[in-house]
Amino acid sequence: MKLNVKNLDIASRGVLLNRVDARGIGVLDGDRVQVINPNNGVSVAAFVETTSTITQQGTIGVYSFTNERLHLDDGTGIEVREAGRPASLDFIKKKMDGGKLTKEETLTIIKDVVSDDLSGAELTAFIVASYINPLDLDEVEHLTRAMVETGEQIKFASRPIVDKHSIGGVPGNKISLLVVPIIAASGLKIPKTSSRAITGAGGTADLMEVLAKVEFSASEVQKMTEKVGGVIVWGGATNIAPADDRIILQEYPFKIDARGQMLASVMAKKFAVGANIVVIDIPIGQHTKIATMQDGRKLAREFIELGERLNMKVECALTYGDIPVGRSIGPKLEVIEALRVLEGATEPNSFIQKSLSLAGIALEMSGKASRGTGAAMAQDILTKGKAIEKFRQIIEIQGGDPNVKSSDIIPGEHNFVVNSPSSGYVIEMNNRSLITLARTAGAPQDSGAGILLHAKKGKLVKVGEPLFTLFAERNWRLQKAIEEGRRLMPILVEGMLLDRVPSSSEF
Amino acid sequence: MKLNVKNLDIASRGVLLNRVDARGIGVLDGDRVQVINPNNGVSVAAFVETTSTITQQGTIGVYSFTNERLHLDDGTGIEVREAGRPASLDFIKKKMDGGKLTKEETLTIIKDVVSDDLSGAELTAFIVASYINPLDLDEVEHLTRAMVETGEQIKFASRPIVDKHSIGGVPGNKISLLVVPIIAASGLKIPKTSSRAITGAGGTADLMEVLAKVEFSASEVQKMTEKVGGVIVWGGATNIAPADDRIILQEYPFKIDARGQMLASVMAKKFAVGANIVVIDIPIGQHTKIATMQDGRKLAREFIELGERLNMKVECALTYGDIPVGRSIGPKLEVIEALRVLEGATEPNSFIQKSLSLAGIALEMSGKASRGTGAAMAQDILTKGKAIEKFRQIIEIQGGDPNVKSSDIIPGEHNFVVNSPSSGYVIEMNNRSLITLARTAGAPQDSGAGILLHAKKGKLVKVGEPLFTLFAERNWRLQKAIEEGRRLMPILVEGMLLDRVPSSSEF
Repeated sequence: MKLNVKNLDIASRGVLLNRVDARGIGVLDGDRVQVINPNNGVSVAAFVETTSTITQQGTIGVYSFTNERLHLDDGTGIEVREAGRPASLDFIKKKMDGGKLTKEETLTIIKDVVSDDLSGAELTAFIVASYINPLDLDEVEHLTRAMVETGEQIKFASRPIVDKHSIGGVPGNKISLLVVPIIAASGLKIPKTSSRAITGAGGTADLMEVLAKVEFSASEVQKMTEKVGGVIVWGGATNIAPADDRIILQEYPFKIDARGQMLASVMAKKFAVGANIVVIDIPIGQHTKIATMQDGRKLAREFIELGERLNMKVECALTYGDIPVGRSIGPKLEVIEALRVLEGATEPNSFIQKSLSLAGIALEMSGKASRGTGAAMAQDILTKGKAIEKFRQIIEIQGGDPNVKSSDIIPGEHNFVVNSPSSGYVIEMNNRSLITLARTAGAPQDSGAGILLHAKKGKLVKVGEPLFTLFAERNWRLQKAIEEGRRLMPILVEGMLLDRVPSSSEF
Repeated sequence: MKLNVKNLDIASRGVLLNRVDARGIGVLDGDRVQVINPNNGVSVAAFVETTSTITQQGTIGVYSFTNERLHLDDGTGIEVREAGRPASLDFIKKKMDGGKLTKEETLTIIKDVVSDDLSGAELTAFIVASYINPLDLDEVEHLTRAMVETGEQIKFASRPIVDKHSIGGVPGNKISLLVVPIIAASGLKIPKTSSRAITGAGGTADLMEVLAKVEFSASEVQKMTEKVGGVIVWGGATNIAPADDRIILQEYPFKIDARGQMLASVMAKKFAVGANIVVIDIPIGQHTKIATMQDGRKLAREFIELGERLNMKVECALTYGDIPVGRSIGPKLEVIEALRVLEGATEPNSFIQKSLSLAGIALEMSGKASRGTGAAMAQDILTKGKAIEKFRQIIEIQGGDPNVKSSDIIPGEHNFVVNSPSSGYVIEMNNRSLITLARTAGAPQDSGAGILLHAKKGKLVKVGEPLFTLFAERNWRLQKAIEEGRRLMPILVEGMLLDRVPSSSEF
C-alpha cells in the first residue's frame, strides 16, 4: 500500500497506521510492516501501532527513532507492506532449546538487532536464552565478529593500537582519565571508546563529558587519535558495534550482564577500533560483578582465548574491587579528583596505583617498557607533567577548554555530611549501596551529584567525624538520598548498631 | 509533578511526556512513572516516551490502552512521579537463575502482568526463563491460582459445571460447536470461554463470531449459562484470567507454548468459571504440539494432578492429531461444516466421532451417563435434533440469528482448486503447512478465508482430481496463498515428485 509520510516527534520505534489502512495491509497492532524510502532505497521493518485520528487514512506516522534510519520527509509517498517473520526468531528459539548457534545464525540475529527488525521483547528472549544456556567460546567468537561487522570499523595506518577496558561494578573507577593520557603521552595510540553509566553512578563517557564533547563519529575518533594519540569518547555515538547498546538496554531491568554478550561486547569494540593490545581490568569483590579470584581467573582466560582467536594480545588485571577506587563517586567529583592527581596531587593512593599498574601493563605489552618497568614509566610520565599536558590536548581536540583546572569544576550545591555514629574502624563499604545512593542523589544525569568519601575501609574514625558527604544539584534529590542512606548504611563502623530490637520481642 | 491529561488515540501502553517535564521528574525514555487518577484513586505504572512538540510542557499524553485502566478525561490534573523498580523483576531473575518461585513471588509477578507494570520484554524474560527452567507442579499451581485471583470469577449456585478444552495444534478442530450444545442439551451447564486464533487458522471464538456476538462480561456469561445451559464466548473479553492473554501475546513470536504457563492458563480459566468436571483434548501427531503418545500421557497426568490440587475432576482424551479434523479449515468453512452436522449430515466422520467421544466422557464424568454409554447418549442428543435446538438457543442468547442455516453462510468469493498432480494414495497432510496456507489466504481475520479438503490421508486419488480448494475474501491474498501452496505442498500424493534435480548435478 502507498502511504504518505507524517513524521511524529515521539522518541520511539515504529509506525502509527490508521486502522483502516492497517486492515487493508492485513496487519494488527504489534505486527511488523516493511517500509521503504523510495529516494534512498533504505528499507526497514517497523512495528505497527494504530489510531483512528492521529494519522488519517492514506498517511503513515513514523516515530523518530525509526525515521533516524529512513530519513523520510513529510509527504513522501512510500510503499508499506506486511513484513515477513524474521528468521532470527527461529535461531533464538534454537538457543532457547539449548542448541548451538552457527556463525551465520548469529550474524542474522545481530543484523536484525542493528536494523531494529527485532522487538525489545524478542531481543530479551535471545539474551535470557544465552544467559541460561551460556554461549560457548565458538558462539562468543561468532557474536563478537557479528557485532564488529554490523558496525563501523577503524583501520589505523600503523600499529600497535592500545585499548583498555574495565568490566565495571566498582564505584569511582575513573582510571581511564589517567591511563589514556599516560599511554598517549608515551607515544602510543589509544582510541578509547567508553560507555555512559547504565546501572552505575558515572561511566567514563559521563565523566569526560564534564570536560569536553564525547559524541564523535568513528572517522573523527580516528583523526583525533592520529593527531594527539588518544581520545575518550562515548562509544554509543560512533556506530561501532551498535548492537551492544540495544543488548545492554534489554539487560538493564534484570541487572544482568550475560557472560557471552559481555565478552563479545568488550572485545568487539576493541577489535573494531583496530586495537591489538588490550588490558582488561577485572575488579574482584563481594559487592562487585565478579565475587572471587577463581571466577576472575576463569573470565580472564576467556578474554585471553577470545583475543587469540581475533589476533589480539590481551592481558587481564584482577584488581581489588571490594571498595570504591579513590574517594569520589559521581561525574564532577570524580573529574575533580582525577584532575588533581594529574596536576600533581599524590593522593588518593588507591586511584593512582591502580591507574599506573594498568598503564604499566600496556606499556610493557607494547614494548615501550621492559617487563617489570611499566608502572615506573607510567609514574614518570605522570610526575613529569606529560600526562596532564597530553590530557589538555585531548580535551582541546574534543572541543573542551584545555586550561581547565580542578578548582574550576563545582559539584552540586546541595550537600549533606554524614558523620560516624560511633568510634572505631571502618569495617565495610558496600559498593552497591554507594552506587544506589549516588544515583538517588541524581548521578549520572545530574553531573554534580555524588558522594565524597572521607574515611575508607580500615581507617579509625571517632564518633561525630565525617564519614562521607552527599552532593546533589536538586534539594529534593538530596533529601531522598539522605533518607535512603539511613536505610542502606553503605559504610559500617566497628561498634555501630545495625539495628535495635525492643525488649518486647524478648519472648 | 502535576500534569494535565491529554488522551492520545494510539493503541498502545504508556505515556508521552514533554522532554522538559521528563527531566524534571528525573526519567528517561523507557523508564516507568506512576500515574494516579485523583478521582478514583486508580494508580498505574506506565512506560515513558518523550517528545518536544506533541505534548506541551505541563501536559501528559496518555495512550489508549493505559487510559482504559485509568479512565482519565482530558484536562484532568494528575500526579506523576518516578516509579520504583517492581519486585517482580527480582523474582523473574530468580527463575532465570534456576530458582523455585514461591506462591507470593508468583502472585506478585502475575499482579504486575495484569496491571501492566511489566514491559513486554520483562514478561518475555519470565516466559523464556520458565520455558528453559520448567516450572514444577507447585509452581504451576501457584501460577494457576495467581491467574485466577487476578481476574474475575464465576460462582454458580449449583454444580456440576462442565468445561472442555483442546490444547490445539490441529487445524479444523471445530468440535466445541458440537460438544457445547450436546452437553447443554443433556441438562448440564457448560460456560465455555474460548480463544481467538493466535497462530492457528481459527479459534473457537473466531468460529462462533460468524454466528453471534462473542464478547461478554463474566456476569453475562453466568446469566446466559444459567438460562440456556451453555455459551461459547471469547475468553479475552471476560476478564477471566486476564494474565493469560498477555502471556500468549509474548509467546507468539517464538511459536512456543511454555508447558507451565499452558497448564496454568487452561486450568485457571476452567477454575475461574467454576468448572469441576473438565475434559481435555490432547491431539497427538507429528505436526501438532504433542508429537508422541508418551508425551501426551505425561501432559495428561500433569493436568489430572493439577486438577486434584484444585478440587477439579479432570480427564484427558488423547486424540488423533496427525491430520485436520473434518474437511474444513477457517472460520466460515468450519461453521458451515458444523451446522451441516447439527442439521443432520452424517459426514465427516472424524469430526462427528471426535465430538461425540469428548461429549461422552463429560456425560460419564458427571453421572448423566454410565461408564461406556456416554458417546451413545451424545449421539442420541445429536440425532434427535436436541443439539441443534440447543445451539439455536445459544446463538440467540448471544445476539445471533437462531434461524441461521448452513446454506446462509457464504465463504470467500475468491477460490482456487488444487488438483492432484498424480494418481495414488494421499500419504501425508502437513497440519502446519495447512494452517500457514489458510492464514496466508486471510484466516482468521478474513472469516471467509480457508481451505476445504476434498481428499484426506489414505484416500486414492486420480491425477487431475481435486485435492483441496483455497478460499479468500481478497484476490491478492488468494494469489499469495496459491504461490505459498506450491512451495509448501501441504498434501502429498504417492508418486508425486517432491523435487526435480537437473542432470548437471549428477557429478
